[in-house]
Amino acid sequence: MAWDSTTGSLDLATLRAAYARNEVSVRDVINAVYDRIARRGDDHVWIHLVPREQALARAAQLEASSARGPLWGIPCAIKDNIEVPGLPSTSGLPPLRKIATSTGPAVQRLIDAGAIVIGKTNLDQLAVGLVGVRSPYGVARNAFDGAFVPGGSSSGSGVAVGAGLVSFALGNDAAGSGRVPAAFNNVVGIKPTPGMISNTAVCGRGTAKSLETISVFALTVADGMEIYRLIAGYDPEDWFSKREADTCDLSLDTAPTPFAFAIPRASQLQFFGDADAARLYGDSIAVLEKLGGRAVEIDFAPFDEAQRMLYEGPFLAERQASVEDMIKGHEAQLHPVTREILSTAMHWSAVDTYKAIHKLAELKRQARALLADCDAMALPTTPTIYTVAEVLADPIRLNARLGTYTNFVNLMEMCGVAVPCGFRRDGMPLGITVLAQPFKDGVAARLAARFQAAQALPLGATRVPFRAER
Amino acid sequence: MAWDSTTGSLDLATLRAAYARNEVSVRDVINAVYDRIARRGDDHVWIHLVPREQALARAAQLEASSARGPLWGIPCAIKDNIEVPGLPSTSGLPPLRKIATSTGPAVQRLIDAGAIVIGKTNLDQLAVGLVGVRSPYGVARNAFDGAFVPGGSSSGSGVAVGAGLVSFALGNDAAGSGRVPAAFNNVVGIKPTPGMISNTAVCGRGTAKSLETISVFALTVADGMEIYRLIAGYDPEDWFSKREADTCDLSLDTAPTPFAFAIPRASQLQFFGDADAARLYGDSIAVLEKLGGRAVEIDFAPFDEAQRMLYEGPFLAERQASVEDMIKGHEAQLHPVTREILSTAMHWSAVDTYKAIHKLAELKRQARALLADCDAMALPTTPTIYTVAEVLADPIRLNARLGTYTNFVNLMEMCGVAVPCGFRRDGMPLGITVLAQPFKDGVAARLAARFQAAQALPLGATRVPFRAER
Repeated sequence: MAWDSTTGSLDLATLRAAYARNEVSVRDVINAVYDRIARRGDDHVWIHLVPREQALARAAQLEASSARGPLWGIPCAIKDNIEVPGLPSTSGLPPLRKIATSTGPAVQRLIDAGAIVIGKTNLDQLAVGLVGVRSPYGVARNAFDGAFVPGGSSSGSGVAVGAGLVSFALGNDAAGSGRVPAAFNNVVGIKPTPGMISNTAVCGRGTAKSLETISVFALTVADGMEIYRLIAGYDPEDWFSKREADTCDLSLDTAPTPFAFAIPRASQLQFFGDADAARLYGDSIAVLEKLGGRAVEIDFAPFDEAQRMLYEGPFLAERQASVEDMIKGHEAQLHPVTREILSTAMHWSAVDTYKAIHKLAELKRQARALLADCDAMALPTTPTIYTVAEVLADPIRLNARLGTYTNFVNLMEMCGVAVPCGFRRDGMPLGITVLAQPFKDGVAARLAARFQAAQALPLGATRVPFRAER
Repeated sequence: MAWDSTTGSLDLATLRAAYARNEVSVRDVINAVYDRIARRGDDHVWIHLVPREQALARAAQLEASSARGPLWGIPCAIKDNIEVPGLPSTSGLPPLRKIATSTGPAVQRLIDAGAIVIGKTNLDQLAVGLVGVRSPYGVARNAFDGAFVPGGSSSGSGVAVGAGLVSFALGNDAAGSGRVPAAFNNVVGIKPTPGMISNTAVCGRGTAKSLETISVFALTVADGMEIYRLIAGYDPEDWFSKREADTCDLSLDTAPTPFAFAIPRASQLQFFGDADAARLYGDSIAVLEKLGGRAVEIDFAPFDEAQRMLYEGPFLAERQASVEDMIKGHEAQLHPVTREILSTAMHWSAVDTYKAIHKLAELKRQARALLADCDAMALPTTPTIYTVAEVLADPIRLNARLGTYTNFVNLMEMCGVAVPCGFRRDGMPLGITVLAQPFKDGVAARLAARFQAAQALPLGATRVPFRAER
């Protein structure tokens, strides 16, 4: 059966097989991608869509070339706060629009490998938010139901993969921006240990510079990790790049059975009334146990305290410090919620900041001790999902709730792989995140891959079944 | 020739040889130490001197024991902001006086190894200062000439070793507190990469918690490194402990010839009019060259900018954040200069702090690039030395000058070994510091050891000649 332009999966294994069998040309795939995008209509996924003719020209160029890089002919999307040579970036603030003439190694390696950038995706302005509704470019329509938020801040990237418009997408993640949209669009979100992927491709080198990381959205853990392996690496130009980026084990080969995974005490779990979410998380624990995992109940309090610090303490000042020069003169055009959040950064002193840094260090110490005997931690990616209307009515409080299980992760320098875990009765997807200690990205990914294979949920909103050989 | 109680050296090799030949008992050595201390009179080196009888009882106990630890019968001193079970600590602020009931692994290992703690040493109050004159316990008398400052903040520890009162002493170092007193008392100061030695023994876990480190004063690099190897190690209880502490190469065995060492451009060197200091530094470069070193002139500007940030920017707020609770109610008893310095911490905001953290990250990046082709950097430990009267007349400005070559080191997570380099015409000693990249402590130490052997200066103020077999 030939690759179908309407329903054919864009996962790497399927696409490569179709190319190998000459069932389809790169230009066919690119035309299919643009047809699918057109069929979705005005879905607010793209801040800048590369013109079809331009993408087809790139496809033709790749087809004519004798060299075939590892991502030859693979369509992808890039979050609009990450620079792609020749394309504009806005970071979700229109006056910042600027066409990049160069980029960092993370993006350059994708291009050199033969990937085809389809466009720049919508985001919560300045990457501040977990909802995807804080953008002057509209709300990227959730791949399942536009009444619900797409998740943010990497909203367009999550939707683009979930809706089957691209094979993978780059996002980035400080509080959960690379994981929440994965959960809400039924895709995989790879959230590396900070310092593993160079941030030099990020506009202004990021907003939570000292802790954020570029992330990868894909249909399968295997696809996401292939992209991650390609773009990871120490970059002497990046302030917060880590030497471990060159040596960290990112393979999916070894099987960690039996394994131990931490979960919060039942009394510490919060789902804000979402019984389906609670059930899906419970079912996920059972799946991990069936895979040879031993669930270890730990005290979630230090993690919860750290997650609250991200937006209730002086850490937010790093966002303001990072964007202050960039947004100067454009303050009036800030999204009102973004402006309100950034303004809280002003309340804090340098002494407060160091007290928070010390407090966080103590919480990290406690976290290390709690996780010492576990290979990983398995948490709900989010406690629930909200509608766009709900978030618009209560934008800061509901956003904060969505970070319950994500906010602490980068503060603690941990890594995680967000993976779909099933559907609520209303059909909306949710996910779990397999988290691990710094530079144990391979451990998290291997467990997440086995979880995904065991669940075998359809990929994104595409109805394509999961197959183990992918 | 038997070990002489008045002139006998306390370096480890000499003392162990004397013990091995039964020339002297541990109690004899302890009595000699107390006689030397008594002869110096009221020298303000000690905030708490262990009573002679108590030290002799410990000596007798060690003599009676069948087990002989690696530091059996070795007298040492501990800075008074580091806890020793059974002894008081004040951190240089009398109302903080408290008798410790336990300590961290760094000190515990010394005791377990058979070292004998003679006393707790004077310091610049709360370890803020590089001069040694900011203490309500008086100015520890410089081992060479009491008219000159002893260096700080670990003033008493530097003097105790330089005056031949103990074999080694612990200090600690954020801005240069473990190096400046080494230079001013003609001894070696080992300043580890932050995170190599647990800070849990430090009162309140330190003041510049995120960057400071315990340090070691000794008569020779070999002695200092032996102590360092014993007390280094990852400590899960310490917020800022590093895993590398268990694997970092601290041996003195391998010989790095030929080697390249960075030095500032001549135009960037500052000696504040001290021609002797300039000459001694020039001579030191020549010595390193004779040892097979290639001097590489680099741009010192990023290092200089970082060193200025330590006291001219929001980093100082970490001191205030650390001591605020501790000093509550005792503000009136703060040394006026300490109070003035801590008060400047209040000027800075959280946003300022993150801007400084980002600026420092950029300077670190530049520093890494500048040092990429060098094994080490060789700098004057201080640009000059001042008299007590000079510092009292201009306490903040002259203190700041003394940090010209030390302040940036912990900010950049580097390590260094301060080693004597010779004497000014007035007889006062100065030093150089061999600096290296994070966790290259062994590289710095090996070069410093060869430098010390090549110079063969007398040890401290003891007139004992350096011998290679030490």
